[in-house]
Amino acid sequence: MTAVSPTEPNPAAHTTDNLTFVLVHGAFQTGKMWNATASELRRDGHIVHTPTLAGHGPGEPMTLSHTDAVASLTAYLHDHDLSDIVLVGHSIGGAYIAQAAEQAPERIKRLVFLSAFVPSAGHALADEFPPADAAFFDMADPAQGFLLPFPVIRERACNDMDSAAAEAVYAEMSPIPVRYFTDKLDLGTFHALVASGGLQASYVNPVSDYALPPGDYASFPRFAVRLGPLARILQIPGSHYVMLSRPAELADTLVLAGCD
Amino acid sequence: MTAVSPTEPNPAAHTTDNLTFVLVHGAFQTGKMWNATASELRRDGHIVHTPTLAGHGPGEPMTLSHTDAVASLTAYLHDHDLSDIVLVGHSIGGAYIAQAAEQAPERIKRLVFLSAFVPSAGHALADEFPPADAAFFDMADPAQGFLLPFPVIRERACNDMDSAAAEAVYAEMSPIPVRYFTDKLDLGTFHALVASGGLQASYVNPVSDYALPPGDYASFPRFAVRLGPLARILQIPGSHYVMLSRPAELADTLVLAGCD
Amino acid sequence: MTAVSPTEPNPAAHTTDNLTFVLVHGAFQTGKMWNATASELRRDGHIVHTPTLAGHGPGEPMTLSHTDAVASLTAYLHDHDLSDIVLVGHSIGGAYIAQAAEQAPERIKRLVFLSAFVPSAGHALADEFPPADAAFFDMADPAQGFLLPFPVIRERACNDMDSAAAEAVYAEMSPIPVRYFTDKLDLGTFHALVASGGLQASYVNPVSDYALPPGDYASFPRFAVRLGPLARILQIPGSHYVMLSRPAELADTLVLAGCD
Repeated sequence: MTAVSPTEPNPAAHTTDNLTFVLVHGAFQTGKMWNATASELRRDGHIVHTPTLAGHGPGEPMTLSHTDAVASLTAYLHDHDLSDIVLVGHSIGGAYIAQAAEQAPERIKRLVFLSAFVPSAGHALADEFPPADAAFFDMADPAQGFLLPFPVIRERACNDMDSAAAEAVYAEMSPIPVRYFTDKLDLGTFHALVASGGLQASYVNPVSDYALPPGDYASFPRFAVRLGPLARILQIPGSHYVMLSRPAELADTLVLAGCD
Repeated sequence: MTAVSPTEPNPAAHTTDNLTFVLVHGAFQTGKMWNATASELRRDGHIVHTPTLAGHGPGEPMTLSHTDAVASLTAYLHDHDLSDIVLVGHSIGGAYIAQAAEQAPERIKRLVFLSAFVPSAGHALADEFPPADAAFFDMADPAQGFLLPFPVIRERACNDMDSAAAEAVYAEMSPIPVRYFTDKLDLGTFHALVASGGLQASYVNPVSDYALPPGDYASFPRFAVRLGPLARILQIPGSHYVMLSRPAELADTLVLAGCD
Repeated sequence: MTAVSPTEPNPAAHTTDNLTFVLVHGAFQTGKMWNATASELRRDGHIVHTPTLAGHGPGEPMTLSHTDAVASLTAYLHDHDLSDIVLVGHSIGGAYIAQAAEQAPERIKRLVFLSAFVPSAGHALADEFPPADAAFFDMADPAQGFLLPFPVIRERACNDMDSAAAEAVYAEMSPIPVRYFTDKLDLGTFHALVASGGLQASYVNPVSDYALPPGDYASFPRFAVRLGPLARILQIPGSHYVMLSRPAELADTLVLAGCD
C-alpha cells in the first residue's frame, strides 16, 4: 500500500508515471507565478509548461476579448504538439482550461481546477462574483483594462502572507482586458463532456481560499459541484496563492489530482 | 496542560487510560483494512478488535439481509464478552454500530463515526446517497451482490492516492448483499438513546472525504448533525480511506474521539 | 517571495514589523489562558497584553452587566495608553472587542476574531446560540452567575483534548454574570465601521471548532460573513481552545491575521 496524502512527504508522487503538466495562471498574472511549483514537479521527473496567455502581463493590448486568451492557450498546445496533458487552471484560469478542453479534448488526460472558477454555461466570469463585487466591473475603464484594487487582493487572496509578500504579489500584477470578465462564455460543450465522462476533472481547494468571500458565493464547494459526481476533490492547507506559499505540497497534490 | 491535537505527535494518546477498540469496516471491505491503524493503537497499549462482518469478504452468501451483518457484530461482542468498548464504524459501518448499540448499549463506552453514515430512522443506506447515485442500486443484481464500479471508488474515495494505491484498494474489495443498502433501518432506539444521552458519540471527518459528493449530500456535516448537540466532532487531514493513508494520525484521533 | 503559511515554521512572522497585541479571553476564563501563546509572540519580538475583564475570574460580582466587561477593556486600553493595537477576541471576547472598537477606534490597527462571536446589531450573545441551547440561559441563576455544564465544554470545546486536559480547562473556569449573555448589544456603530472600512478585521477559524454545533448555527462561516467582503480569513488546524493546544501555530497565525 503506497497511499499518500498531500500534506506529508509523498512517496507516491515519485513513483507514479511521469506526467506532462500545463499550468495556466489566473487573472493579472503570468506563467512566472508557477516557477516554484514547476521546479518541484520537474525535480520529480514531470514535464511542466507554464504559458502566459494573451492579454496577461505588462504591455498587452487591452482591446482583446476573452476568446483571445483561450486561443493563445490552444495555440500553445498545438504549437508544442502536446498530448496526454494534465491541464491545470488557477482562479479564472479555470475558464480558460474549460474552453481549451472544448476545442482540443483529445490532447487532455485530465483537467485540474485549482482554486478555480468553473463558470456555468452562458455566464461571464463577472456573473460568478458576489453581487457586492459587481461595482468593480462597472467602474473598470476598458481602455485601461481591469485590475482588482490592492486591498481586495491583499485581504482575500494574500490572507496567509505578511504585507511584504502581499505587496510583492501585487507588484507583479498587470491589468487584463475588461472583456475577459464580462464576455459571456458558452461552455455548453464543456459541461456536456464532463457530464458524459468525456472529460475527467479534479478540483483542489486550499481551505483558507476566500478569494471569493465565505457564504453562498464561496468558490468551494460551489465550483467543485459543477464538475459532476465523478470529480476527484482534494482539500489542502493554504490560500488562493498556494503555489507561492506551499509549492512543494502543491506539487505533490497536483500529481495526485492529475494522475490516472 | 497536556492538550493535544490530532495532526501532531500526540503525547496525550500515550498517557490516557488504555481503551478497548472495536473497529468496524465499511462496504466491500473486511477487518484487514484496519491493520495499520490497529498496529498503531496496540503500540500505545490499547486493545483492538477488527472483526469482519457477515456478508463482507470473498465467498460470502449474497442472500443475507442487513440484519445479518449487525447480528454478526453483536455476536462478536457477546462471544468475546466485550464491555466498555469504543465502537468505531467506518462508512456504512456507521449503520452497523448504531444498530449494535441499540441491542447492547451496556457494552459501549462511546460510538465513533469515522467518515460514516448516520442513517435517519426508517431509511435505508441507499436513501442517504445523492439521487444521481440511485441508478447504482437499481442496476445491482441481487444474485451477484453489489460493488460500486471502480471509477466511483477511485475518484471519490481514493482521491488522495495514486492509481496503484487505488487499484490495490479495489483489488481487496468484494460485493456485499444488495439488501445491505436497500433494507429500511428502524434506528428509532438509537436516535432516542443519542438524544437522551444514553449513548455518547463522536464524529471524525477527514476534510477531503468526498465519498459522497460535495453539496447537500456530503456526509459532513450532514451526518454529524444527527448525533445531537453533545457530539464530539473532529476534522482531520485525509480522505475516506484515512486508515490506509494516515494510520498514525488516525490512531491518535481515535483515542481523542473515544476517550472519556 | 517570503509568503508563508500558518501551519509551517513561519519566517515572515519573524521579519514583519513588531506588533502590539491585546488578547481578550472568552467566557468563564481569564487572561491566563493566553500564557503559552503570549510567550510565543513575545519570543518573536511582539508586545502582548492579556487583560482579565471585569466579571471574569474567581470572586467577581455576578451583578455586573455586559457593559461592565467592555468598560474594563476600554479602561485597560486607556490606562496603558495603547495605540496601533491588534485587538484579538476569543469566543464571546468577539463581542467585547467589537464594542471596545466602537468606543476607541483610533487605538486599533486591526480586530482579529478567533473562534469568536460577531453578534448582529441589537442581539444578545444568547441569541446567537442554537435554539436547543436556550435552556442553558433560562436555567441560570443570576445570583450564581452562569457557567456551561462540564459536558458541553468537554465535548464541544475540548474535543481535541484527552479527559485530563479537558478537566484542567474546566477547573480554571468561573461563572460569569448572566447578563453578559442576555443583555442586548447595540453594535450598530461597529457594523457601520466595518462596512465603511473604518475598522479592519480578520477571522481565524480552527477547522475542528464546533463549540457551536455544526449546521446553521456553526460559528464559521456565519460570523466571518458579518465582517464584510474585505475581511481577512484564515482556517487553521485545532479546535476552540487552540491557544492551549497549538500555541506556536496560533502565534504565527495571529501575526498573519494582524499585520498590515
